Amino acid sequence: MPSERARQVRGEPLIEKILEATLDELARVGYAALSVETVAERAGVNKTTVYRRWPTKTDLVGAAVKREADTALCSADTGSLRSDMIAILTEIRDMLSTRRGQALIRMILAEGLTPEVAALMNEIRKSKESGPKATVARAVARGELPRGTDVEMVFSMLVGSLQHLLFFHHETPTNHRIAQIVDLVLEGACRGGGRCLRSAN
Amino acid sequence: MPSERARQVRGEPLIEKILEATLDELARVGYAALSVETVAERAGVNKTTVYRRWPTKTDLVGAAVKREADTALCSADTGSLRSDMIAILTEIRDMLSTRRGQALIRMILAEGLTPEVAALMNEIRKSKESGPKATVARAVARGELPRGTDVEMVFSMLVGSLQHLLFFHHETPTNHRIAQIVDLVLEGACRGGGRCLRSAN
Repeated sequence: MPSERARQVRGEPLIEKILEATLDELARVGYAALSVETVAERAGVNKTTVYRRWPTKTDLVGAAVKREADTALCSADTGSLRSDMIAILTEIRDMLSTRRGQALIRMILAEGLTPEVAALMNEIRKSKESGPKATVARAVARGELPRGTDVEMVFSMLVGSLQHLLFFHHETPTNHRIAQIVDLVLEGACRGGGRCLRSAN
Repeated sequence: MPSERARQVRGEPLIEKILEATLDELARVGYAALSVETVAERAGVNKTTVYRRWPTKTDLVGAAVKREADTALCSADTGSLRSDMIAILTEIRDMLSTRRGQALIRMILAEGLTPEVAALMNEIRKSKESGPKATVARAVARGELPRGTDVEMVFSMLVGSLQHLLFFHHETPTNHRIAQIVDLVLEGACRGGGRCLRSAN
């Protein structure tokens, strides 16, 4: 009987293959139309092998997307909020410019109202955003941004601006454009535009 | 033989019915899966009636979406850029919060890479944005924003921030949130964050 370690070594490439096949299928047909059978075929394994580890489609897709998301967002800490945010947005732009990145985001957007997909994506978004949001929070702590700055909103505006250009203007933002977005949002936030309790009058 | 006016009166409700059926089908199945036959059935007309006026699916969808878009965006001119932008974003939020508005946007996002849909949407986006962008340009002209402000980018950031909250956070922005977005972007733009020629260093 093989040792635990030997089984892991034998198991990992299989897991990798199945999760890769899941991401490719997701990018190709989206969540609603994804079939575990097709994923198994694509990975060259029996569908019971897939079901044994991930009993439902949501489990399988969740594992695949989490794995992709885990390797995706840095938590820059160069000491300057501006250069940290430029680094993070550059990374997001690069990720969203790959064929698979685009397909995944389009899937999220197209099927975001499905409660299963929405719950999964919320969880992933929160874990992915924790690094960048900590970066903004540090800037508030050291006085680069006013106390009371709404960290989540500031980060949402940076990412939303980038996504808008990519998905509505079909423009891949240049490094220059990214710096422009960061400058505008941070200057606005410096002036207190992003405070939580600002009156809406 | 009926006069031109009589034919128009008889024609309009039919056109309305067909374009409404097209929008409902678009919201239901998206562009790729939309069938002119199903639209005709839904509108209670013969498919040749549809093809006579709109020879291709792109023509039909284009007409339907343009009609919807025509009635959608105001060009506020209250004299204050802040209240103009709040009015415009409120209108966009309300439009994107309807079932059909959401479905149409999700369709654009999901199928935006199809060259047909992309070209159609770019045209509509440009026509819809012309009012709001003129509002921002007037503010530059009267000195509320610095000369050289990138009007298109400032507007993209406002809309992108709103869309991000709606589609990624599943949050319908409150009036307070809209004011917060507008304040942050306009304060950033006032400080020159949105200038076209700013160095990216």
